[in-house]
Order: sequence, then C-alpha cells, then structure tokens
Amino acid sequence: MSVSKAVSLPDVVMNTAVNAEIIAVGSELLTSKRVDTNSLYLTEQLNDLGIEVTTKYVVGDDRARLAETVRTAVSRSRVVLLSGGLGPTEDDVTRDAVAEALGRTLVFHPHIAEELEARFTKMFRVMPQINKRQAFLLEGAELLSNDRGTAPGQWIDHKNCWVMLLPGPPHELKSMFGRECLPRLEARVPKQSIETLVFRVAGMSESDLDQTISPVYKRYENPVTTVLAHAGDIQVHLRARCATPAEASALLSEVGTQIEALLGDRIYSRDSSSLEETVGALLSDAHATISLAESMTGGALADRLTSVPGSSAWFAGGFVTYSKKMKSQALGIPLEAIERHGAVSKETAEAMALAVREKMGTTYGLSVTGNAGPTTDGQEAPVGMVYIGISDARGTDVFHRQFIGDRPRIRSFAAQMALDILRRRIA
Amino acid sequence: MSVSKAVSLPDVVMNTAVNAEIIAVGSELLTSKRVDTNSLYLTEQLNDLGIEVTTKYVVGDDRARLAETVRTAVSRSRVVLLSGGLGPTEDDVTRDAVAEALGRTLVFHPHIAEELEARFTKMFRVMPQINKRQAFLLEGAELLSNDRGTAPGQWIDHKNCWVMLLPGPPHELKSMFGRECLPRLEARVPKQSIETLVFRVAGMSESDLDQTISPVYKRYENPVTTVLAHAGDIQVHLRARCATPAEASALLSEVGTQIEALLGDRIYSRDSSSLEETVGALLSDAHATISLAESMTGGALADRLTSVPGSSAWFAGGFVTYSKKMKSQALGIPLEAIERHGAVSKETAEAMALAVREKMGTTYGLSVTGNAGPTTDGQEAPVGMVYIGISDARGTDVFHRQFIGDRPRIRSFAAQMALDILRRRIA
Repeated sequence: MSVSKAVSLPDVVMNTAVNAEIIAVGSELLTSKRVDTNSLYLTEQLNDLGIEVTTKYVVGDDRARLAETVRTAVSRSRVVLLSGGLGPTEDDVTRDAVAEALGRTLVFHPHIAEELEARFTKMFRVMPQINKRQAFLLEGAELLSNDRGTAPGQWIDHKNCWVMLLPGPPHELKSMFGRECLPRLEARVPKQSIETLVFRVAGMSESDLDQTISPVYKRYENPVTTVLAHAGDIQVHLRARCATPAEASALLSEVGTQIEALLGDRIYSRDSSSLEETVGALLSDAHATISLAESMTGGALADRLTSVPGSSAWFAGGFVTYSKKMKSQALGIPLEAIERHGAVSKETAEAMALAVREKMGTTYGLSVTGNAGPTTDGQEAPVGMVYIGISDARGTDVFHRQFIGDRPRIRSFAAQMALDILRRRIA
Repeated sequence: MSVSKAVSLPDVVMNTAVNAEIIAVGSELLTSKRVDTNSLYLTEQLNDLGIEVTTKYVVGDDRARLAETVRTAVSRSRVVLLSGGLGPTEDDVTRDAVAEALGRTLVFHPHIAEELEARFTKMFRVMPQINKRQAFLLEGAELLSNDRGTAPGQWIDHKNCWVMLLPGPPHELKSMFGRECLPRLEARVPKQSIETLVFRVAGMSESDLDQTISPVYKRYENPVTTVLAHAGDIQVHLRARCATPAEASALLSEVGTQIEALLGDRIYSRDSSSLEETVGALLSDAHATISLAESMTGGALADRLTSVPGSSAWFAGGFVTYSKKMKSQALGIPLEAIERHGAVSKETAEAMALAVREKMGTTYGLSVTGNAGPTTDGQEAPVGMVYIGISDARGTDVFHRQFIGDRPRIRSFAAQMALDILRRRIA
C-alpha cells in the first residue's frame, strides 16, 4: 500500500481501518419532524478520504448523556465529529460535555472574545455577555475559524483520536469542515482510492438474490457488498478501497464479473439508472415506441415512464381502463369477451395489450390487469392476482403472478414486473 | 395526573419520566445517501404516550458494536427500540447482537418456520433455507407478528427495560408497532391525554399559510403547532397535552376554531385524509363519477385517484395522451385544432376535459396539459406552464398556472392543483 508523503507526519495512520463516529447534538433533532442531515455531508467527505462511519448518534442538550456518548466514541474510533451545541445559550452543552469526557479544562481566550465583539460591532450591535461563552476552548484545542457565524469550532488531538467540535447550522459546518478539517485529515490519513459498482436487479426476491450471490461476495472483505431492496427493485452495491484507482477497479471487476455471471439478464442497470430510464434508453436506441393499457396499476406505469425526461419520443400514451366498460369502449375489446373471461384474466390482458398496440400504432403494447385489493369486492380474482400482457409484431404473451401485501405494495410490484417484462422484450 | 386502570399492572411506571432510545440498524443507513426515517414515526408514537426519546443511533451491520450499543441503551432507558437487521441474510445481525447484549440464548420456534413456509407456498414459491433464521426468538421473547413481510418482531421484558425488535421496511414497522407494541406500552405507561388536530390545506404556499395563522398559534405554547409542507400539500398539526381528554379537546377547539376561520375552504381535510381520498369521498357522496385526460402529469393523477381503495366506484378511467396524435385519436379532438392553438393551451385543455367527459359519460371530466420540462424541446410553452380543464353539465372551465422547479416538482404541483380544482367543483 502506498502511504504517500503523509507518512512523514508523526501521527499518520498506517493501516487502512480509520473509523469515525458522528454525534449530532440538539434536542430539536429528537423530535418527530427533524432529521440530522449534517452527518450525510460529513459521511461523504470522510468516505472520500477512505474513512468509514461506523456509528451515528443524535443526543439532546443533556451534558451528562453527551459526555457519556463522547467517552464511548473516543474509546473506540480514530475520528469523532460533533455538530451543534456550540451556541452562547445555557442549553449549548457541547463544550462542557466534551471537556468532561476528555478530562480537560476550558480555557478563556481573550482574543477570540475580541474577535466576536468586532463581529457584532460590524453589524452595529453590542455583543450580549453570554456570547463570551463561545471564547472558551478546551485545553490544548486548536481553533477552527467560522466564517459564517459566531460559534468557533475546535480540533483536539486526544490520545489516539481526533475530536472535532463543529457548529450545527449546515452552511457554517460545511464551510468550516472544508477549510479547516479536511486539510488536517488529508495530512494525517494515507491516501486511498475508493471505487464503487452498482447493479440494479429486477425479477427476483431479496433472499433469492442473496442466496445466489453471497457465496461470491462473502469471500471478499474488500470490496464491501451491500444489498438493498425496495418494492421489487434490488440494488447491489460493491465498494472497493485500495491504494490506487487501478487496484480498486481491478478488484471491482474481479468480483463484479462473478456476480454478473450469476445474475445474468436480471441485471437491468450498471450505472444506477432506474428501470424506467433503462427501458426508455432501450426504446430510444431501437427507435421503438410503447403504449399502455393499465387497469390495476391505475396510471402508475404511465407515471413512471413519463417521469423520464424526453419520454415523449418513445411513449405514445396510455389508457387507464378502470372499468370493463372502458376496457371495451376505449380499446375496442368486445364487452362480452371481458365478461366471459373476467376482467382479471389471461384473455383480457392479452386483448388489452394487442388492442392498445394496434390502436396507437406503437412497436409495443403493454397491459396490466389484476386486483390490488383491499377486497375482492365483486371481482372474480383474489387480491394480489395480476396478469401482464406484452404485444409486438412477433405476437402477444401474458405473464401471471400472485403477489401478497397491501394495496400500494401490490401495485408497485406489478408495475415493476411489467416494466421488467417490457425490458426483456426489447433487449 | 390520571393514571387510570393501568396502575394495577405490576410493571406500570409510576412517574412520568419514561425515556426511550431508538437504534436503527443497517450499514446502508451509514452511507451519505440515506437517513433513518423510522425513528421519526416511532418518536411521534412514543411522544403521544408521553415517552421522551433521549438518544438515537445508527449502527452498521456489526454484531459486536451493536451489542455494545444495546447494552448502553438498556442500562439507562426504560424503552429501547431497534429497527432493521431482522432479515434472513448473514448480515442481519440484530437477533444475535441483542441476544449477546442481554445474555439470552436464541430459541428456534418450529411453528414460526411453518408460518414462513406457508407464506412462500401461497406465492407458489419454495422458501429459501436461510429464511429459517427468522424463526429464532430470544429466550423469553414474545413474538410480534408481521402482516406485511416475513421478518417477525420481538418484545423482551428485560429487567427494568422493554426491548423491541422491529423490521426495517417502514410499512412493516408501522403496522407492527401500531398493532403489537402500542397496546403493550399503553397498558404499562400512565396515561396522559394527548389530542391532535390536523388540517390539510391546498392552494396556498407554506409561507403564505404561516403568515396567515402564526399570529394565532404563537400565542399558545399548548397546543404545539407544526406546519409541514410537501409538493403543494400543507399540513397544520396541533397537539395538546393535558391531564384529561376534555381539557385537551377544549384547548384544541379554542385554537382550531381560530385557524379554521382564517383558512376557510382552503382546508380540504380535518381527519388526515389525503386530497385524493377527500375527492373520492365527495364523488361517492354525490353519486358522481370522474374521467381524466392527462398530458403533462402523465398518469400521476390517475395513479393518485386509483390508490384510494374502492375508487372503481367513481373513477371511470383515464387517458394519458402524451402526443398530439393521441389527444386527437383517443379523445376525438380535431388534430387541426390542437395544431392551431398548441398542445399546451387553454383551448386544448378545454377540449380535452369536455371530450373525456362526453366519451366516458362521467359527471366530471378533468384535463391537464402543460410542459414539465426539463426543456421546451419543440413545445411552444415554457417549462412549468400548465392548463387545467374541468368539465361538467354546467360547462367547462380552464385554469392557468406557471410553476417553477424541476420536472418532478412541476408534475406534482400540477396534479395537486388539478385535484383541488376538482374538489372545489364538487363541493
């Protein structure tokens, strides 16, 4: 591993496992309406340096509890970042809590107080006395300047750990971290190259996918493989961390190739594109067009396709045929045939796909009919039953599935499956 | 404070200071792209019971670290909630970590395994062997049933603490917490009366709304008023916390009446119903029906209306007319007229609304045509321009608006406005 010029510094980290913990401070972040977003920015910055975030916390304005949290984090991680609680008021407890946790005193710095006063004077205001609290630094701390607000930050080299106190407002935190913390971290952490590879997969369950690919990815600690699933859409993230970009790419390629061989055409995207974007690009490349006849998905399929910018080039239009009458009237399918086979049937799905393709003069016609629940009310088909029809010049095919879950889940699984059927037909 | 019948239970908490800690598990939640949102829902539910959340954590799929976190939380709080990591795969470590932290063994429950297998059989699938992992419960744990997925939850009474293991997917977690955890907590925690009142508002901006109602709500610390805005939909939440339900209701009524007087018919719902649910109920009550001709919203309007259970009673169907040709062909509007006025014009919106109503024989016809961007490519209309047509036996009217923002934002504002226009027409 190359450690670059940073190796000459006294406290450079020689191994690759630099871990960080992020502590967001503030009782307002413990309400049901607010999330801590500073940690997302900090995570991105740390990851780019090859530093992994292992735990995040949100702690209220409670000195004892915060001190306990800081003690835990400092005992096991190389980097500890705190955001918030550096203001001038009584409930800003970060300075006191960190001092307690690290066993250091707080020292008043007159020149910081003077600078704060100058700032207020510039705004034609008199500095409230309580702002003097912001002129206290932990014993041995370095000042991190704040060019967007009054709260100064602090950097403390504590035993095996770098502790940073950052302000809560995001624009203050970002500016301070970028100007003051990044250069210090870059000088101390050996350079690493991090490369990622993402596969997006349709047409299999999360557990089936994991069973298929885990024999491969478990043999590697690097890259780290993560499987994420949502509504029938699965993402496989591979993240390699090496000394050079070439090594990281080679490693990703080694593992990625094996995973690709196992998943085959169930992978629909290698560049984070969504399924509708993938389908749109395929249609566009083939100079082909699509029209839709949706029943159970009720416009969700059209909504997804038209969410792709430029979709008007390949999406001709759709019919949301929510009644037998409309299936018949708008698509020209004999009502008698729908009544005979049922609205949710192979025959109706087939007729819908064919009819919409012919009516709209498109390359493909795609249809979905089914029962999304919550009840079977009068419908012949059980909740979760779905038929998907795809029609082109070669003919019309129908696929059948039984989903379980609530109405939104069944609808989104059906839409996902329909788009995947279309994708396979074009590809 | 009234403590009600719960006082007779052995482990009821007699003072009001019941603290909770929430631990979200999953390495994907430690990336720079994802936040834990489950804790927001859980916080809201716990607050309603008078339970305060004092610390939140996000921990990766790391058994030892998670066990350490659980030990800390259990040692100092009455309620400890974990979400995620209950899946069937190797990296789902929650069961093992909590067992280790609490010093309990994991016990295999054959009947849980059987139920899991039955679930797979229902989907005509064979259960992968790894799913058997989900049939292990901690020694002494109670099963929390999952009606939305395979991962069972667990409730453990551990010394002075109630520990809950909940699944990560939000719809599974919410259903499980509501059905299984809330009743158990309600039986153990002394009652406070918390009453809420929600107004949902359409047709005004968040800042206009806040300027209108803040002179009222700022005069009250109780109830607490929160304004939430998302894509043209605004919610005003009032939350009163009193010793008795009567006191809380009286307080809500006092403040709510003043806010209602200021907002008038811009309030579309007082019971948390969405705009599409409100419209559906209005149509249903009036024995009226609706059909849609959507261009720029591309099926999003149909998707929202058909997401309402039972919508087939009042939603006849929709046309996603994404090309001039389809506007003409499917709706019978002369192509020449569309060319003359432009696809995005008052005249075309009017013709679409009228045509779809007549073609489908519905009480109302609703149309949306506009340009959602990102470019004006060949379209005459600037990005963000939208025309909405509404037609009934009394005539056809067109509304015109210019929205700003990106494609998804423009589409959702247009859909929200169209539904609100329909609501006002029916009401």
